Amino acid sequence: MSDRRTAILEAAATVIARRGVRGLRVEELAEEAGVSKALIYYHFEDRTGLLRRTLAFVNNRVERYTAEQAAAGQPAAETPAGPLRRLEQALLLELQDLPHVRENSTAWGELRASAVFDPELRGELALASVIWVREVADQLGEARPTAPESALTASAERLTALLEGLSARWLSGILPLTDARTRMREAIGVEVAHLAGLD
Amino acid sequence: MSDRRTAILEAAATVIARRGVRGLRVEELAEEAGVSKALIYYHFEDRTGLLRRTLAFVNNRVERYTAEQAAAGQPAAETPAGPLRRLEQALLLELQDLPHVRENSTAWGELRASAVFDPELRGELALASVIWVREVADQLGEARPTAPESALTASAERLTALLEGLSARWLSGILPLTDARTRMREAIGVEVAHLAGLD
Repeated sequence: MSDRRTAILEAAATVIARRGVRGLRVEELAEEAGVSKALIYYHFEDRTGLLRRTLAFVNNRVERYTAEQAAAGQPAAETPAGPLRRLEQALLLELQDLPHVRENSTAWGELRASAVFDPELRGELALASVIWVREVADQLGEARPTAPESALTASAERLTALLEGLSARWLSGILPLTDARTRMREAIGVEVAHLAGLD
Repeated sequence: MSDRRTAILEAAATVIARRGVRGLRVEELAEEAGVSKALIYYHFEDRTGLLRRTLAFVNNRVERYTAEQAAAGQPAAETPAGPLRRLEQALLLELQDLPHVRENSTAWGELRASAVFDPELRGELALASVIWVREVADQLGEARPTAPESALTASAERLTALLEGLSARWLSGILPLTDARTRMREAIGVEVAHLAGLD
């Protein structure tokens, strides 16, 4: 991806996290990215094209910082890391009070909420969700290899939807971050105990 | 509440469900409600006042149709209704493809998403969430009277956050309604089994 294209997508995530999708103005985006409005239209055709690419970009960035932080050996990773520990780390990385996590989660939540009104965003959103659910189901399957595939997928759908629900409460200031993290950690334990009971 | 005040709030929920909070224009709202713009400002002072009252109105309407449908004896209510059955009914009533449920859930999701950017909405939102979590915790406590209070509250926080996450996926068209309902029903079973293990 060209540097300027990346700069536009980074700026779009920043502006969406600041004002929401409906607050995104191409003028402000151009200023934030340090490019002309024409270049934005050249790369993304129209507003919908820009939003779709931003959704994919924000989603890929979550995957990247999740992988980077896991590789960098965060304090929690110093304990022997079984598959469940890795799953917990991956899900809890999105509930952290770090500027880039907050920005990314806010932008993701906004793009998700916009898809209710903008069917053209749904393809990207559905694809990202399917891949995410698949990854979480695989991690659950490493921990509970004898659990049925359908049960792993159902647990993964619940855990990822719960994370989105908790994240929205945290970002709107009605659930403290520590509570959101505790609820998420407990949910993983509850789902894994459920899967163990199906063995 | 005066009839015209109610008409304005009903119209606000309709317009927000149609176009989102940021698509809400006072002109369109006045037309939808059949009142003047001046009357809207007379009753609600400003846009924030209107959004706050709409949030409370949408929240009360969920409680009302939940209670009405339970009292009207929906098919599901014909089976002997234990506390868990009542809880399942209450939570699943919000995942139904009926126009008023879809409208209410869409408006609620939008107002919730807006609170990320509008701190003035957070008081109403936090209050509604606390009351809802309390109700669900009480229903769980009727089913599992010996479970610790803190565990009931934690389970209720997870179930309500999960419902918001599943509802958002359903409304944005990336999760079929039947799957959302199945995941929710399973989650209640999983949480209740967890609470039983704590007895």
